[in-house]
Amino acid sequence: MATIKDIANQLGISISTVSKGLNGASDISEDLRQLVLDTAVEMGYSTKRSKKEEFRKLCLFVENMEYETIDSFGYEIVLGFKQNAFRHKWDVTVVTISPEFQKKERYDTYLLKNGYCGAFILGLALQDPWMEQLKTTTMPTVLFDNFIDGNPNVGYLGTDSYEGIHMAVEHLVNLGHKKIAFMNGSLYSLVADQRQEAFEAAIKEYHIECNKNMMARGYFVADSAHYHVPEFLEEGATAIVCGNDLLAQGVIEYCTSIGYRIPEDISVIGFDNIPVSATTEPPLTTIAQPRNELGKYAYFILNSLILHIAISKSLLRPQLLERKSTARVKITEIPPKESKKKK
Amino acid sequence: MATIKDIANQLGISISTVSKGLNGASDISEDLRQLVLDTAVEMGYSTKRSKKEEFRKLCLFVENMEYETIDSFGYEIVLGFKQNAFRHKWDVTVVTISPEFQKKERYDTYLLKNGYCGAFILGLALQDPWMEQLKTTTMPTVLFDNFIDGNPNVGYLGTDSYEGIHMAVEHLVNLGHKKIAFMNGSLYSLVADQRQEAFEAAIKEYHIECNKNMMARGYFVADSAHYHVPEFLEEGATAIVCGNDLLAQGVIEYCTSIGYRIPEDISVIGFDNIPVSATTEPPLTTIAQPRNELGKYAYFILNSLILHIAISKSLLRPQLLERKSTARVKITEIPPKESKKKK
Repeated sequence: MATIKDIANQLGISISTVSKGLNGASDISEDLRQLVLDTAVEMGYSTKRSKKEEFRKLCLFVENMEYETIDSFGYEIVLGFKQNAFRHKWDVTVVTISPEFQKKERYDTYLLKNGYCGAFILGLALQDPWMEQLKTTTMPTVLFDNFIDGNPNVGYLGTDSYEGIHMAVEHLVNLGHKKIAFMNGSLYSLVADQRQEAFEAAIKEYHIECNKNMMARGYFVADSAHYHVPEFLEEGATAIVCGNDLLAQGVIEYCTSIGYRIPEDISVIGFDNIPVSATTEPPLTTIAQPRNELGKYAYFILNSLILHIAISKSLLRPQLLERKSTARVKITEIPPKESKKKK
Repeated sequence: MATIKDIANQLGISISTVSKGLNGASDISEDLRQLVLDTAVEMGYSTKRSKKEEFRKLCLFVENMEYETIDSFGYEIVLGFKQNAFRHKWDVTVVTISPEFQKKERYDTYLLKNGYCGAFILGLALQDPWMEQLKTTTMPTVLFDNFIDGNPNVGYLGTDSYEGIHMAVEHLVNLGHKKIAFMNGSLYSLVADQRQEAFEAAIKEYHIECNKNMMARGYFVADSAHYHVPEFLEEGATAIVCGNDLLAQGVIEYCTSIGYRIPEDISVIGFDNIPVSATTEPPLTTIAQPRNELGKYAYFILNSLILHIAISKSLLRPQLLERKSTARVKITEIPPKESKKKK
């Protein structure tokens, strides 16, 4: 566990300044104080809380999502949430869950018996046992990428998929692409539904033909690409929008393996901006989710729900990151290659 | 202007306790401190801020909306915003604006020259001059009921119209209604668009015929009802969903004037829960917007935007308030009356 000295070394400031930051002294700047607090959380510093504050505990449940290493999707979300909660004097416990865990433990009971005032849940799937219980939970809860109809205790937080996919299609249209395919993610995912709807609306807006053979839904994993990309290429796709960065990596891998060059022959664009997407070959153009901000904002929503402000939906803005996997379409359309294999 | 003594009298507590609440002393409870602060704002108390804090100013622009009296739609929104801002040591100035004002003053320039760090805007219309400038503003801005595409500095806040209209239709369907009309508001309003879409989706979900003669868009004022309700009645409507409470009042007034009884002959349901809707004859069943919470939450969003968390959309939950203007449908359908007049 990091000590005050470790934090001081990391930031190159004195121990007494770190101490002031941690204890809310008024003679250091607000910016510095926040930096000290953020760094303390990131380095795993924790302090004994006073008796009075001991009951202020929040739970962060994680399923279907990596978060422990800095290159994982969930890392910055978890970190942002903990940073903001810490700043407002809450303790956060991270608990990884599975469908089996959910079958064994009732949601409300689990929170109550462990003294949590509320929870933030990452990665729950639509068919998970707790989804049903969340319809009637009385515990303030923020769901990442999931929506519960009609329960004022549950808020939905995500990145605006509609705006993100629109940005992706607009970017490709501006590069002259007219044959744009969509490699989307899982059928049991709210965001995949939203991205599907957004894609269809965007291609309609830009008067691009809606070709069912150029849209596919696999899973949010790289392998899905192999099953669907051959058909996209047969149909003459010059660009492929992907439901997330892992799918985009699968698309690039497959296209490269059969002799297509990225971006000369095919432009590929991802979604999420997972850390590794900056260093793939070529570096991936993608729609970034503001993950640290999502985590920070999740705290604000949860705090509001605890204060009986019934937040229903909150969406953050995505951002287009242009790297090297998209380029202007070739003037002549690419003839379908001979070497296509279809699984 | 209210003094500390006035606040003490209002709450029935000592002057020293009020003083502790205003100055953040640690020996009173957090709940009491918040009550003191909320009451201070509501009573118009203001204090001199220190030099250091003087730059922390927010602006609240209001157009097309009453907010000064307790029975007006905007009162609780403005109050909630000021209460939360005050609690976090911001000064708030309320400025009423018109299209002329917007033509004269550039948005960003106005905020900068007056030293505002950000703004919350109520009641802007889609065709207003500032709507164009908001597409590129660099000032953190929260818009009530308006959305700006693609600008990370502008967040949209509202009540979930979709969920609200769904609740209204579900309530009527549960009362046995099958012929449900929709008296919607202005054509130049984002929320009226959303409520229209929501109504069409809801009646589809409940297998109710989508009859174009049973859907109308007027303005968000009572008079609009007179132009459209006669046709609803001709078509045999047994219930009318209204885009807001003012329209619902117009509908009730018109129906009553031609001899229909509310709710025996026609059920009417509003949207907003403006204060007067509890005391109309009959008291109005309506979909409540949580106005104080909307104001409070607007502050959280604005603060997040100032901290560079790019909130795109935030929706709060509506609530169905069952009063006396809706009832179970009569078993025999009502024959159209003779006395209908159509303007």
